[in-house]
Order: sequence, then structure tokens, then C-alpha cells
Amino acid sequence: MTDTVFTPARLHDATVRSFASDNYSGVHPEVLAALVAANDGHQVAYGEDVYTARLHQVMAELFGKKVDVFPVFNGTGANVTALQSLLPRWGAVVCAATAHINCDENGAPERVGGMKLLAVPTDNGKLTPELIDKEAWGFGDEHRAQPLAVSITQTTELGTCYTPAEVRAICEHAHSLGMKVHMDGARLANAAAFLNVPVREFTSDAGVDVLSFGGTKNGMMYGEAVVALNPSSADGLIYLRKMNMQLSSKMRFISAQFLALLSDDLWLKSAGHANAMAAKLRAAVQTIPGVKPTQATESNGVFAVLPDGVAERLRESFRFYDWNAAAQEVRWMCSFDTSAADIDAFVAAIRTELTP
Amino acid sequence: MTDTVFTPARLHDATVRSFASDNYSGVHPEVLAALVAANDGHQVAYGEDVYTARLHQVMAELFGKKVDVFPVFNGTGANVTALQSLLPRWGAVVCAATAHINCDENGAPERVGGMKLLAVPTDNGKLTPELIDKEAWGFGDEHRAQPLAVSITQTTELGTCYTPAEVRAICEHAHSLGMKVHMDGARLANAAAFLNVPVREFTSDAGVDVLSFGGTKNGMMYGEAVVALNPSSADGLIYLRKMNMQLSSKMRFISAQFLALLSDDLWLKSAGHANAMAAKLRAAVQTIPGVKPTQATESNGVFAVLPDGVAERLRESFRFYDWNAAAQEVRWMCSFDTSAADIDAFVAAIRTELTP
Amino acid sequence: MTDTVFTPARLHDATVRSFASDNYSGVHPEVLAALVAANDGHQVAYGEDVYTARLHQVMAELFGKKVDVFPVFNGTGANVTALQSLLPRWGAVVCAATAHINCDENGAPERVGGMKLLAVPTDNGKLTPELIDKEAWGFGDEHRAQPLAVSITQTTELGTCYTPAEVRAICEHAHSLGMKVHMDGARLANAAAFLNVPVREFTSDAGVDVLSFGGTKNGMMYGEAVVALNPSSADGLIYLRKMNMQLSSKMRFISAQFLALLSDDLWLKSAGHANAMAAKLRAAVQTIPGVKPTQATESNGVFAVLPDGVAERLRESFRFYDWNAAAQEVRWMCSFDTSAADIDAFVAAIRTELTP
Amino acid sequence: MTDTVFTPARLHDATVRSFASDNYSGVHPEVLAALVAANDGHQVAYGEDVYTARLHQVMAELFGKKVDVFPVFNGTGANVTALQSLLPRWGAVVCAATAHINCDENGAPERVGGMKLLAVPTDNGKLTPELIDKEAWGFGDEHRAQPLAVSITQTTELGTCYTPAEVRAICEHAHSLGMKVHMDGARLANAAAFLNVPVREFTSDAGVDVLSFGGTKNGMMYGEAVVALNPSSADGLIYLRKMNMQLSSKMRFISAQFLALLSDDLWLKSAGHANAMAAKLRAAVQTIPGVKPTQATESNGVFAVLPDGVAERLRESFRFYDWNAAAQEVRWMCSFDTSAADIDAFVAAIRTELTP
Repeated sequence: MTDTVFTPARLHDATVRSFASDNYSGVHPEVLAALVAANDGHQVAYGEDVYTARLHQVMAELFGKKVDVFPVFNGTGANVTALQSLLPRWGAVVCAATAHINCDENGAPERVGGMKLLAVPTDNGKLTPELIDKEAWGFGDEHRAQPLAVSITQTTELGTCYTPAEVRAICEHAHSLGMKVHMDGARLANAAAFLNVPVREFTSDAGVDVLSFGGTKNGMMYGEAVVALNPSSADGLIYLRKMNMQLSSKMRFISAQFLALLSDDLWLKSAGHANAMAAKLRAAVQTIPGVKPTQATESNGVFAVLPDGVAERLRESFRFYDWNAAAQEVRWMCSFDTSAADIDAFVAAIRTELTP
Repeated sequence: MTDTVFTPARLHDATVRSFASDNYSGVHPEVLAALVAANDGHQVAYGEDVYTARLHQVMAELFGKKVDVFPVFNGTGANVTALQSLLPRWGAVVCAATAHINCDENGAPERVGGMKLLAVPTDNGKLTPELIDKEAWGFGDEHRAQPLAVSITQTTELGTCYTPAEVRAICEHAHSLGMKVHMDGARLANAAAFLNVPVREFTSDAGVDVLSFGGTKNGMMYGEAVVALNPSSADGLIYLRKMNMQLSSKMRFISAQFLALLSDDLWLKSAGHANAMAAKLRAAVQTIPGVKPTQATESNGVFAVLPDGVAERLRESFRFYDWNAAAQEVRWMCSFDTSAADIDAFVAAIRTELTP
Repeated sequence: MTDTVFTPARLHDATVRSFASDNYSGVHPEVLAALVAANDGHQVAYGEDVYTARLHQVMAELFGKKVDVFPVFNGTGANVTALQSLLPRWGAVVCAATAHINCDENGAPERVGGMKLLAVPTDNGKLTPELIDKEAWGFGDEHRAQPLAVSITQTTELGTCYTPAEVRAICEHAHSLGMKVHMDGARLANAAAFLNVPVREFTSDAGVDVLSFGGTKNGMMYGEAVVALNPSSADGLIYLRKMNMQLSSKMRFISAQFLALLSDDLWLKSAGHANAMAAKLRAAVQTIPGVKPTQATESNGVFAVLPDGVAERLRESFRFYDWNAAAQEVRWMCSFDTSAADIDAFVAAIRTELTP
Repeated sequence: MTDTVFTPARLHDATVRSFASDNYSGVHPEVLAALVAANDGHQVAYGEDVYTARLHQVMAELFGKKVDVFPVFNGTGANVTALQSLLPRWGAVVCAATAHINCDENGAPERVGGMKLLAVPTDNGKLTPELIDKEAWGFGDEHRAQPLAVSITQTTELGTCYTPAEVRAICEHAHSLGMKVHMDGARLANAAAFLNVPVREFTSDAGVDVLSFGGTKNGMMYGEAVVALNPSSADGLIYLRKMNMQLSSKMRFISAQFLALLSDDLWLKSAGHANAMAAKLRAAVQTIPGVKPTQATESNGVFAVLPDGVAERLRESFRFYDWNAAAQEVRWMCSFDTSAADIDAFVAAIRTELTP
């Protein structure tokens, strides 16, 4: 069709890896291969393609029951769409104060979703039935936004992980109050790898109603999925996805990526590798005087307080973010492509900084 | 990292092409190559990557001036975000009744964008200063949503194309009324190819304030861009994109696709090919008794009224949509990968149906 | 408690009456008396007072069934709240293009209510099943805002009145399509007076689901009521009223006004008087050469086209609004306090203007 | 016009007064007289009447400068409208966790206003520059709702009062950060009476940008006013009021009430009386063993912790609300019509309950 001999340029140095975020990484080679395989020819747009159909089957096997699957573009879109499906217009969501929906979505849940967030401070990013009760009250009082859903993040923004029993206790408590449960699973794979149990044990079997199933942070180019684990509790997802501007026309490509992730446990292997790199980093730094880890390392991130000035100097060679600048707390994230050598080099640099 | 030997499956027959929509097609091979080239290693997320930086330069060259570029996920997201940036909370948008924002976005402009659409019936999908005046009134009247923006689609949903002079007349008229102008360029490339003039002649130079620059319908996997051609008239796009759930973490991949499209005029070649295929189809069918084209063919779509029952029978072999079922009007769309042989086969089928 | 001898000043000339709007008038003396009677002492706020309780009983008698009654502040608030209660987040409302919700509420239904309006042009402000069908399609199509409610105005913004049979036909048609029916009854009393049938014949008995029951235009100081005639079809009104900022703390005063209106048929007498004044005006002006009435006079407004310049000259003595300035069409409204002498004086002025 | 001899019924016992809320009370006699005086004849609707014009003059005198005044229906409407006028679509509001906007408006600021609230726990309902800094960060970070306004309540929901110096310090701090300041003055009069300084000292002169000026809790039937003390910082109030469904057609009646309040210092006398009754109650109960006041009594409310079961028994004779049921903390509110005898009777009842 065209005689161009355009060769796309690589503009970046592909050998550089950072500890800033698991979305600094690119696409897992097998996911990329799946994108190529799904290309060419025509497929019905907006989700009536064979890849999306197949994804429904794979998800049903994974969760042990019929589920509704709605591929979307990104995590904020997944969360807002999922929560709207669980709530009437007057609903509110109990969440941890550190939740991504509360801190990192520029108010999309409120502005686009029209919901109020009732945020509860926690020690480790995890809600409990007791913590939920701090905001789960005022039912029937028209002056109060009605707390009709709980949102938990698995693994949490602080790198901690709910056990299946903890999720189950939250779901049972929420349901007993007439509330529904959403799980923000942007790092669901890291949880499944860390817990080393079938994902259904801490999702569908535990009572979660709707799940944001993350893909991007685990080696996809883009794409997440809203999964209605309890379809009867989620209303209108087909419409909400569209009106929330999360309906991909060439949806086959999101679904194909998920199919790649879910084949041969690639999602668990990738997340398990990222977790292992974080564990390796944690094990090393906690032996370095001056580094004070602040959270359990139960996924792919390490949180630590550093002495004055250390973070700034380290950043001359390695990119990473402050978590709580006032407390000198930083966050180091590992990815599916973080190597043991990357960890070793980083640990050596930290050790050098902190050796008198 | 992993020893899996997973080979992603192609689940579909890649030889099938339809006339349903330009987003039934997949990804242009050069765009796919650009995705591969942009992979591996780490890049800063959320747009601080080198591909997005380069895209700003390329867009500035294209439009002949400094512009702000905000890659987003899809067309609805681009349109709503662009329009919000032009409007205060009390704003309304004058658009053609057939506009995508009015007909095909499930109310996202109203629900997410908080704007009112003032839709004007047109013959051919194109607004004019006179048509704009049908709704551009009531300025200062608190009871009326304030008509502070015009949105035009280039090429239109009916396959017609504004000339540079027509765009300029609209922009001058709108600006004289204190209104701003948005262009929905989901098929901008088809317009540039049809008009065979530099794109700036009917966008930046003509006075358009903010543009939704389409990529998906022209061979990208996903991704569009909000381009503030007149950055001083567009407020807060950096925030609006995020809160509208259109901020891609691994943005390098959207930008890399645009860079591929804009290299060696790939975007014009692809769109020009699609236009040529539509022209070929149009030329053929208008000689077939019983087929009544309803619009000028100025891009990649042909609209026609068919005799009773013909559409249904043709659909046994070729997929396409009704445009106006009540009028027996159908829409046939061509894509970058539609071949002359595809057209020949389709025309033959139509001819067969309509030969007594 | 205070020794002040403040005497509130009347700042206006209470003898002046205009033909601009039925809300230029003040409060009917009996309504004012009811406000005084309801004063003093304490009553539970937010609707748990005895006046609001009594209003429920009175409304139940009026509509011949158990209804839910939600006093609110104004008509826009009533309409948006009522419509939200009938619609999911993805809903749209079919209405006449001239509807108050479409033309006179600065986009509140879209911006606050989050709904899309699907406006249909009409000759006389009245929808019919056939007109509704112009927009009642696309059910189940995620790209289209779902047309799940019809809103009709009784009497219409053009002064016309639906017969009970017409309302019933609309309700039956809408219900057969799975749509619900809202009636904007800002001038409900004028309809009841014009039709001279029990109000239930064209509301509850005819199948209307939720009603905005107007008070302000018929002699109340402020206050309307959302009345769920079919409570099972309206969801969450108690919460919607509050979050829509329509919950009056001292609600006894809205309810007491409605009780006054509904005592001894004051609402029908007042509206019937306003209707009679409009009929008198209509009868007079249609004999004046040059005045061309444009609508049937079925309530308290007269619409007419005037020769060039006449409106401007008449406005030197009488205030009234253009309805369609381009067509030289004006609107003359009568109120509960418009007198026969007011009409005579106005007619004389018109006659003088138009006599060669 | 009508021969009815309807005499409106008083349905309630006007001798009963409670301690539940200052909006359980009715209308001050002088305010009622002003409503009567403003009645009869026609006045231009929607604020172009002479009472509203006069209110602008009176407010300008009160605040010592030209201000824009927008009468609205209720406090939630005033707050949401005021805050929207100060914020772009991506704005957030720093407020005390106990703020009415955060606790008692069913999410209207989020749902209707589209803003995020960043709530800060406080000891006494009062923000300080230091407390504001807990949420006033992340400027320019697209992921975070931008903290561009501070909202303080005067007097606070806990009955405490900001001094002029405290307000000034907050305004200076906020302005230095590029933030604007809103004051929720639902009980502004109680603050002015308590502080015994001209109201401008802690509003316009102190740097507050937009004020919600309360009327209902101080003897009006309904009505508050958004007052833009710094009109250049508040955008589009004329449109926001309408689209927020807060535009009263017969606005003369809201304005006339305010004019009555502001004549001969009625507003200060009424609020001062309510404050004095609260002080009397406070003085009495703090001598009763078992009653533990929890906040300074700086306006018309007393907050106290009671021994187990006492609140329930007192409620058999006197209505009042729990403030914090878990802590056995109750709130007792006084009104313009609370009498010394009311206080004496209530204190006697408390004393009886708590005497062994």
C-alpha cells in the first residue's frame, strides 16, 4: 500500500531501569507478541471480537464462576466505573486514606463518579471491619452521603497484602451492613504471587463484588479490566464504561494482552519476580544502618526512611519517588524487568552513601 | 526471567475485512514496528518520556506554531477533555445534530463534561455561521446555558469535508461572538488527504482553538491527542486529562504511534488510501441502478439508500451498519487496509443483488 | 426580646401589574395567612413537621392513592430531582424542544442531573407517541444515552394543555417501551382549571410516574413539590432532594402554603382566574387587525406575532417578554392577581397602537 | 377574586420549644412583617426587583466595599455555589473534618460542585495555617486534586468562633499559597454578636473572598446569600446560582427578609439573644456534676458529655440531638426565640436527672 521505508527510531536508552514505578517499565515480550498475533484483518470493534470473548472464558475459569468482564484503558477508569456500578447516585465509599482513589486520581471518583469518599486513616494501608465502622454509619440519614460500598486495594499502596481471611472478614462485615465491596487490584498479580494461593481465594470466593483487574503495572502496554465477580450487584457496566470514556474501539488488543498474561501463569511469574526483587532489596537494605523500612514488604515495593540528604544524592544515579517527603520516607518499586543486578547495583550505592 | 515457551495464539481469520467501520481494522505495520522500537527499558511515566517530548516538536512543525499536546486514550475522551478546557462550568457547545459528541458518546459531554450541547440540524453534517447563529444567542442570560464554544467534525460523520475557507469562516464568526472553536479530528487525516493541503491550513491557520487529533481510525492501536492550537484559550488540560481518566501511564506508546504516523507522511498515505477506496466504491455503485448515494464522498465513507431487503442480503457476506434504518440508508467505511480487491468483490455482490 | 420598633418598608408600588410572567406576582393573601398561622414555636426541621405530614394526606386524597411528597424550593430543582429518581446514570429524557428543562434551566438537568435531553421539535409544545418515537430508540446500544424517561409539561411552555387522553396515550406508549413519565406541572393548576376535571385524571390515573407540582406561579411565595405518583418507579428521592440542595430546613412553611392552596380549591380558583384573564385577552386581541395569535390559549398565556415596532412601543407602558424575537412573537402572561381592568387597559393600548 | 372564607389552620402547638436546632424555630415577627410589606403587586422576577437592589446597598455598607450579592435558597446551595465560583474544575477545598460541607450535605460539594474536599481533623472545628498546610500541597501535580480554596465556618459547627486575627492569618496564608477563602457563615450573626465587632473585621477586611451569609438559622423563613466580598476572585456566580437550582423567581421575598434582619441590628440582637441563652445554659450545666462540656461556648450551642442513659431520659421532655453518640456527647442549640424560662426548665430537668 505504501512504499515508505520508514524505520521507527528508538529514542531512548533501553538499558536504563529505575525504582520509581512499576509503570516506568515497558511491555513484556510475550504480551508484545500477543499484540502482534492479534493484529491484521478486521475484528468487530467495541468488544464483540473473539479475543474478548475468549477472555470471558479465561476469567470465568480463573474466578471459578461466571463473571462479567469489561476491558478498560486505565486504573482510574476501572475504579470509577466499578464503584459507580455498585452505588446509587447518593452513595459513598469507605476506603483507606492512602487509597489510590483518594490520593492519586485528581478527584475523578468525586467529579466523574459523583461519589463521596469516606477515608479512614490506617497504619498499613489495610482496612479492617473495625476501621470500616468508623465511617459506616448514618444509614438512612439524608444529610449524610450513604456509605454503601467499601473499596480495598490489593496489594495496598503501601505494599502490604490482605490475606484471604482478611478480605473475607471485610466482605462479610460490609455485606452484613448492606454495603458492597470493590477491590482495586492494580497489583492483584503481586498479591496472588505473594500469597501463593489461587486468586479466587481472596476475590470471588472471599465475597468481593467487583474487581479492578490490573494489567499495566504487570507488563501490559495499557489496559485493565473491570470484573463483576458478583454480576447481580453491579449495574450498568456496559453503559458506564462508555460514558466514562473507557470503551476501546479496537478492544481485541486489550483482551489479547490479558490472554497473554493469563497464559502459562505469565502474570504470576512476572509479579512473583517483581516481588522477589523487592524482597531482595528489602533484605539487603535492612542490614544497612540508617535505612529504616516502614512497611512489611509483601509485594513489589519497599518503603523506607533515609537520613537527611541521602535520597537526593542517590537520585543522581537512580530515579525514585518520595512517599512522604516530610518524614523523609521514600518508595522503591520493582518491576517484571528489574534484574538482580539492578538490585545489587542499587544496594551498593545505598551502602556507599550510608557508610561513614 | 521466565522459561515459558508461550506462543500467543491468533484467534481470528486475518483475511476477513468488512465495511463496517475504520476501527474494525488493526494496526498499521509501521505503527506496530514503532511500538516494538519504543519498548524495553524504563521511561518516565505519564508523559515525561522522550517520545512524548519529540511528539511536541513534530506537532509544532506540523501546525506551524507552538502547541500543547496531550495524548489520550480515545476520541470521546479527547473531545470531552478538549471542550472542557474551552468552557466555564456554565458553557454550552453548538454542534451539528449528527456530531459524534451528540450521538455516539452516551452523554459523556453532558455527564462527565458538565456541558450542554446545542445541536443544530444540517443537511450534510457541516455547520456554517448561519447555522451556528440558530443557537448562538442568549449571551448573558442566566437561564440559558451559555453558548461559548462551537464544535465541528473534520471530516464529518457524514463523510463530508470542510474546506479551509469554511473552517476559517466558522472560526471568525465564533470568535467575533466570543466563542471558541473545537475540531473533532477523529478523521483529520482523511480531510488532509482529501483537501491535499497542509493540515495547518484548515486547523491552526484557520483559527481552530483546540483539536482532537485522531489516531485510532487511521492505523493506531489506540490513542488520540488533544492539541491546543491556541494554548491561551485552553485552560487546565493537564488536570482535565487526568481527572477525565485519560492519562496513560506508559504514554511513550501512544506518542510513539503518533510519531510513526507522522513520519514520512504515513498518516496521509494511509488516509489517502482509504479515501481512494471509498471513491472507487462510490464511482462503482453510483452506476448501479437502485443504489442512491446520499452524501458527497469526501473521505473514507460512502452513504447510500438501498432498495428494500438488499442490505440484509448483502450482510450475509459483508458486515456494515445502517446509518438511518428508517430511510434504508447504509454506511460503508474503508480503512487503511481495504484493498482494491475488497472493493471489487463488494461491488460485484451489490451489482448481483440489484441486477434484475 | 427586642425593643426595636422597626416597621418594614414597602419599597415598591404595589399597584403595578405586568404581563411578563406569572412569577412577577406576589403571594396570595390566603397563602400569606397560612404562613403566619404556621409560624411561632418550634417544629422539627427537614420535613418531620405536622404540616408536611398533613400535606401527604391531602395529596393522597387529591391523587386517589398513596403518594410520596417531597417539598422543594423551585421548579428547576423539582424537575431535576424528579428525573434523576426515574433514571439510572446512563439515562436520557425525551422532551419537547421547547421544554423548560431544555431551554430555561441553564443545563441543570445535564450538569447537576447528569442526564442527556433528547429534544424533539413540536408545533405546539406537546409531545405525542409518534414524536416520542423520534428519539425513543437505540435501547441497549451503549453508545447512545438510553432514552428511559419522557418529560411532558402541563400546561406547556406554549400555553397549550394535554387532554387526559393524550397524557394516557403518552404514558402507555412510554411504559410499553420501558420508559417512565415525568410531568413538569409548574402550571398544573392551570391545566386542572382549563380541563375542568379532577387532576388525577391527567396525572396519577393517566399513568404519570413522577410529578413536579408547581406552587410559585400560582400564588405561593416559593416552593414546589416532587410527587411520586408511582412510588415504586422513583428511587431515592429523599437523598436526591438533599444532595440537589433542595431540602428546606423550615419545611413547614412550604407545606403550609400548599395546604392553603389545596384548601377550598384555592389553587383551582386562582389558576382559573388567570386562565380567564388570558382568555379575555385572547378574545380581545384576535379581533385587532395586525395581532396574530400563534397558539391555542388553553391556560394563562397568550402568544402572538405583532407588526414591526409594536412590541417596543407597548413596552413603554407594559412589561412583557419576547418569545421568539426573530419572528416578532411575544408572550403575555396572566396571574392570579391580574384584573379585568388590567386586561382592558392593555387591550386598549394594543388597539391604539394598531389602529391606523 | 374569590369568595372563600378559608382560615388557615395552625396545626402545631406554638408554645413548644426544643434544643435540637436553631432551624426548629420559625420566623421572627419583624421578618414576617417584612414579607407582608413586600407582597402585592408585581415585581420583576429573578432579582431585578427593588428589594434586591436595596440589599446590595445595605450589604455594601455592611462590608465597607462594593460586593456582589446573590440571594439563594439554603445553606448547602450557598456553599456549593460559592465554592464553585472560586475554583476551576480541578480544584479541591481544604476544610475542617467537622465542616458542614463535609458532614451534612450528602456530598453535594462533590456531586453537584464537582470538587474534592480535603478534610483536616481539628480539636475545636477551627482551621489554622498549620492545619491547612496538612493538605495544601501538591500544587501542579496532575494526580492530586488541586487545593485552591480554604473553607472555614464562622461560627463553627462546634460552637466556637474565629477571632478577626485568626481569620486574617488564615486568609493571608491561603492567599500566599494562591488559594482563595470561603466562609460558611450560616451562623455569621452569632459570630458578630459574640465578637462584638463590626462584621467586616472578620470577613471583608480580613481577606475572605466569598461568604455564605446565613439567614434561616437567625429568624428567616428561608434564604441565604452568597456574597462575593472580593468580586474579582469569584467567577460566574450569576450562572452558577441558576444552574445549581438556587435562583428564586420571587426573589424580592428573600431580599426583603435580609433587609429586615439588617435593619436596626435585628440580626445582631437575635443572634446575641441566642448566644446569651446558650451562655446561660452553659453556666448552669457546668455546675452540675456529671455534665462535661466539651467545647467553648462562643455562640448559640452547648456541647456536653452526659452520663449513660441521661440523654435518653431527658429526651422524654426535650428534643435535642446526639453530636457524637459513641462518646455520649450531645448538642443543645438555642434560637432567637429561646426564652430564659426555657433554659431554666431545661436546666432543672438536667439537674433532677443528675442529682443522686
